[in-house]
Amino acid sequence: VQRILAVDAGGTATRAAVLNASGRCLGYGVAGGGNPVSAGLDAALEALSSATEQAIGAAGPPAETASALIAAAGISDRTPLDLIRGRLAALGVQGAIEMEADLLAMFCSGTLEPNGYVLVAGTGSVAARVEDRRLAAVADGTGWLLGDDGSGYWIGHRVVRAVTAALDGRAPATELTDLVLSALQLQRHSDQVRGRPQALMDLMGAVYAKPPIELSRLAPLAFQAANDPVACSIVAAAASGLGNSLRTVWSIGVAGPVVVGGSVATRLIADPTGAAEALRAVVGDAPLTSVRDGLVGAAVLGLERAGARVDADIFALIERSLAALRTGWTPSNPMTSGQPSTAGRL
Amino acid sequence: VQRILAVDAGGTATRAAVLNASGRCLGYGVAGGGNPVSAGLDAALEALSSATEQAIGAAGPPAETASALIAAAGISDRTPLDLIRGRLAALGVQGAIEMEADLLAMFCSGTLEPNGYVLVAGTGSVAARVEDRRLAAVADGTGWLLGDDGSGYWIGHRVVRAVTAALDGRAPATELTDLVLSALQLQRHSDQVRGRPQALMDLMGAVYAKPPIELSRLAPLAFQAANDPVACSIVAAAASGLGNSLRTVWSIGVAGPVVVGGSVATRLIADPTGAAEALRAVVGDAPLTSVRDGLVGAAVLGLERAGARVDADIFALIERSLAALRTGWTPSNPMTSGQPSTAGRL
Repeated sequence: VQRILAVDAGGTATRAAVLNASGRCLGYGVAGGGNPVSAGLDAALEALSSATEQAIGAAGPPAETASALIAAAGISDRTPLDLIRGRLAALGVQGAIEMEADLLAMFCSGTLEPNGYVLVAGTGSVAARVEDRRLAAVADGTGWLLGDDGSGYWIGHRVVRAVTAALDGRAPATELTDLVLSALQLQRHSDQVRGRPQALMDLMGAVYAKPPIELSRLAPLAFQAANDPVACSIVAAAASGLGNSLRTVWSIGVAGPVVVGGSVATRLIADPTGAAEALRAVVGDAPLTSVRDGLVGAAVLGLERAGARVDADIFALIERSLAALRTGWTPSNPMTSGQPSTAGRL
Repeated sequence: VQRILAVDAGGTATRAAVLNASGRCLGYGVAGGGNPVSAGLDAALEALSSATEQAIGAAGPPAETASALIAAAGISDRTPLDLIRGRLAALGVQGAIEMEADLLAMFCSGTLEPNGYVLVAGTGSVAARVEDRRLAAVADGTGWLLGDDGSGYWIGHRVVRAVTAALDGRAPATELTDLVLSALQLQRHSDQVRGRPQALMDLMGAVYAKPPIELSRLAPLAFQAANDPVACSIVAAAASGLGNSLRTVWSIGVAGPVVVGGSVATRLIADPTGAAEALRAVVGDAPLTSVRDGLVGAAVLGLERAGARVDADIFALIERSLAALRTGWTPSNPMTSGQPSTAGRL
């Protein structure tokens, strides 16, 4: 095995690493969202190229890598492998290019076990059961309009609906109102215009001017208003939704760790207030691991596909050497996993 | 008073009528959605012109009308009155042009009483208290993303989320699944692809390819599956949401009729199964009237503004003569009020 390339192409950021055969990360790069569905194919390919070029450049000569593993959401028979191959070949990536589900890479970022569970909730949400390092069952991950129960979008949407109803007199007052108005840089007027509060009209104007998915930026406010009953019930319902997705893929016959990724799931699972009880009840006493993204797992899978055997020592080296390279990269938005893309601002 | 023009510019259709001073409708016209927010300003102005031109043409000479009353949603200081004036002047409309809230016109379509309540739920939903023929309080009407509890969109959204979760194994099976797949012209595969049912992937593809608001086209399926517990609970929750909006504007001191408009509210209020109990409990024993749209009310308000006194006889003549002219116009979609626009297809 020579050098390999590992890529985790997520909705918010695309991350790439170049590793040698012993699992040492030599170079790291990051670019914008790499999900062709949400970012568009051109932008996704551009992000893939950019992150890869940075990683290869940082690794230093020789530029050639022998194979690549790309973890991405929504892989199907229609994934344009030839376009991806062309982009990577131009950067010096030769040999086999394999694609894997980002969800599997996320799982493999947390454990070397062949079986277990993975739960991811950032902007979106999804749960899966892994058997023999394959996705055996997937629940949710159906997007902001159809599902993604308990996700950052789901929470943000409920937050802004609760504030709308409170301003409107249809629901109890909540601390979320001031937090949301201030997050959207709106003033709290007390004026009434044609039977409605001016603040409500302003809120409608601000929200409908943006793509709906940006409501996920309001999710942190639900955690911030920890003493507000409305906020608490939203957080508890999110935990319940994520617990339901995890329960759906749970199988008595499959033991193994639960790997947790994404800012919302990570935060809920660590919540000391009991708000996430419904989720923790599903996890039970299974071992829990939180991961930052799927890049370590993509590296593990890439090395294995290239013929290496990844043991606990190599796994630890991948984690350690990657973490060292990533020290300059700090996510600025606590509710999105990884680097914020410019598209993710509300 | 000479001839006047009355227009009801709704989200789904724009309707216009030319009336003489005694309240007889001489001409009627209908065009696409006339809400500048949802349809765009150009399309709204075009619909206004088209419906008006038809009504004036059908009324026959003389083409001149002395004044106009236009009922529309979302009237504000930014409503481009000069553009509206220009369009109407070109068609022969002289004199004062007044704008009124479509919600008030809806109320005045159902009663000559000065006080009462109006509840509208078609694609969207809103409730208001009317005092002295003015909107004294409004609840909801905040749109598909922020509110519109119990509306056609709200029901359709819950229907498709329930089907998504059922296909995904996250929620109980429901009769809605076959109804939704068939409405979207999708097949019910039993194949699994990467841990997920093919039918779920197809559903996601079909829904995300359309504007979210078109989910309102699925609302009739919730009523159709009257024996399905999932569908029933969606319908009951819609009634509860509408009941909450109506309760929010209800005032002990203000008696008067409840005017109900829009296909969803009309259907719920007439539901014999008890599914709409939460809504009927709010209405109590107040008199109920269902109206088709706000055109009769726009005519009443237009005549009054032009100096006429509208009594029960004139009101009855407006209703009767308008209904006679509308006889070739039958709505083809039972869940939208008035004529379907071409934009309203899923």
